[in-house]
Amino acid sequence: MKSIEWLGDKVRFLDQTQLPLTEVYIETSDVRILAEAIISLKVRGAPLIGISAAYGVLLGVHQYKSSSEKEFLSAFDTTLNLLVRTRPTAKNLFWALERMKSVVRLTSEHDATVLFENLEAEAKAIHEEDRVMCNSIGQYGASLVPDGAKILTHCNAGALATGGIGTALGVITTAHALGKEIHVYVDETRPLLQGARLTMWELKNAGVPSTLITDNSAAWTIKSKKIDLIIVGADRIVSNGDTANKIGTYNLAVLAKEHKIPFYIAAPTSTFDTSLNHGDEIIIEERSADEVIRGFGKQTAPQNVKVFAAAFDVTPNNFITAIITEKRILRPPFEISIKRAVGV
Amino acid sequence: MKSIEWLGDKVRFLDQTQLPLTEVYIETSDVRILAEAIISLKVRGAPLIGISAAYGVLLGVHQYKSSSEKEFLSAFDTTLNLLVRTRPTAKNLFWALERMKSVVRLTSEHDATVLFENLEAEAKAIHEEDRVMCNSIGQYGASLVPDGAKILTHCNAGALATGGIGTALGVITTAHALGKEIHVYVDETRPLLQGARLTMWELKNAGVPSTLITDNSAAWTIKSKKIDLIIVGADRIVSNGDTANKIGTYNLAVLAKEHKIPFYIAAPTSTFDTSLNHGDEIIIEERSADEVIRGFGKQTAPQNVKVFAAAFDVTPNNFITAIITEKRILRPPFEISIKRAVGV
Repeated sequence: MKSIEWLGDKVRFLDQTQLPLTEVYIETSDVRILAEAIISLKVRGAPLIGISAAYGVLLGVHQYKSSSEKEFLSAFDTTLNLLVRTRPTAKNLFWALERMKSVVRLTSEHDATVLFENLEAEAKAIHEEDRVMCNSIGQYGASLVPDGAKILTHCNAGALATGGIGTALGVITTAHALGKEIHVYVDETRPLLQGARLTMWELKNAGVPSTLITDNSAAWTIKSKKIDLIIVGADRIVSNGDTANKIGTYNLAVLAKEHKIPFYIAAPTSTFDTSLNHGDEIIIEERSADEVIRGFGKQTAPQNVKVFAAAFDVTPNNFITAIITEKRILRPPFEISIKRAVGV
Repeated sequence: MKSIEWLGDKVRFLDQTQLPLTEVYIETSDVRILAEAIISLKVRGAPLIGISAAYGVLLGVHQYKSSSEKEFLSAFDTTLNLLVRTRPTAKNLFWALERMKSVVRLTSEHDATVLFENLEAEAKAIHEEDRVMCNSIGQYGASLVPDGAKILTHCNAGALATGGIGTALGVITTAHALGKEIHVYVDETRPLLQGARLTMWELKNAGVPSTLITDNSAAWTIKSKKIDLIIVGADRIVSNGDTANKIGTYNLAVLAKEHKIPFYIAAPTSTFDTSLNHGDEIIIEERSADEVIRGFGKQTAPQNVKVFAAAFDVTPNNFITAIITEKRILRPPFEISIKRAVGV
């Protein structure tokens, strides 16, 4: 399974909204189709959004690679404007687009073909680096997973969310591959059920013992099944360690504290946003009420009711035991450990 | 709207699984149809289950009211056996059936007609008492709701769950009727979405300002919307105050503690089970995996995955600020206040 692939003049990606029932791949050379796929969560997961945005840039400019530099750069700007507005919370989107902008800035030749080649190399590098980062996060994280551990996770921070084996789920599959006897409890993750649809699908494919629960079962599962640790991904981590991730993450962090079990975040350093000092500054995407009240083709609430549909929440740093990155495991105080990890 | 009605030789009840889209009433003189309705949650809510069971007894025996006492009592026993096995957790079911058994025990005439008349009077009394209890709970509870309060509730503990205005939701609608400016946030309550389907429907009908959230949004809603209190119903409360209620209740209790807001249980004293000393002794119903993975008429997880589908959880007494009953508001230590309230 490849969540996304660059085919030289188009991308091919898995339509994640069709999972777990069917594996449908979409091939397109049109950046607007890819941008819509990001908005509608056909392609999702913070690291994968970054990779997709990088390939999206290629789609937007590749028909101009024999044009004038001016035409090429004009298409480049239009493409960036389209992609930057797809989703607001995941840092990796902006990080990837910044890397693509740097390529243009640093390319001295005034030639569209050269610009395109350099951009293509950068997009591929972003993808390949993500694959390597996932492996590294998996290795570091697996060291924190005791043999026999019962683990709770939320949403999907797996291969489907990245260019590699995943972040939080990469830790889990790595621990399993190392022979540790683990059992994973998976929050279904309303409204879009990424846990039920995607994480359960990945765990089943990987042969990792797993059990699905509704989100509101988390507290009772932690208590009655004696969960040993919670691990999730991240969409944006600011300088003090406050972490935006899928709605429900903060809920789990509170439960971890009450039950005195570790609460781990697994994310590449591309998720860090050191331009922000505090979680309050993070823009939290609110999504359509329809995703809650017509989640699966059937209306499940009265007409015209008000819905608060935040897609993410922010977990304050003091709830987080450690942040597992591709460089090392970061511990509190995160102000210091994050600064060291990103080298600023 | 009447959640259930006795029509002299049959019952008429609202099929709650059809809400909020259509108001379908089922009329039946067959206790097996009513028992199935309890199992399949067409009729649900701890107090309403008790009332339904009492009427169910009438359905099971009413064709024997001109028969011999022996035939009548045989039908009575068969009916009790059927009803007692419908759902295991709500105390009110067993409490109502015990009351019906007492009627038979205490009726000195050996006459089926008299037995039936006495049973019918008792079932009607159970229903009427529940209506009165709800009003009383509403009045006591409303005194705990500050003007301007933002309230979080879970599942449905309203008119649909009782023979009156409800327990937790009765407190809310009473506070609203008293002119308090409140806003209610409602957990959708997976897997069967009683919050989205039923509580939002009741609040809309009652004109109470309300907002629907996914269950995993509770922590973020409490924090970002500054929720003032949480109030829920109960299915069984044991002597020390440990409370079984809809799965997700314990989750909210932990969140209330972390955010230092009151966590209230509203329930009639018929919910108390003083035969049990500790929440660990409560039998927790586990329901079908299908309710989770085919909840919306569409399969939302891979085939044959394991599901942990507890229908209830137990909230330890130390998380509960007060229990609002029809007699008074009970405060910790609950061992003492519950003993006083039930008069044992």
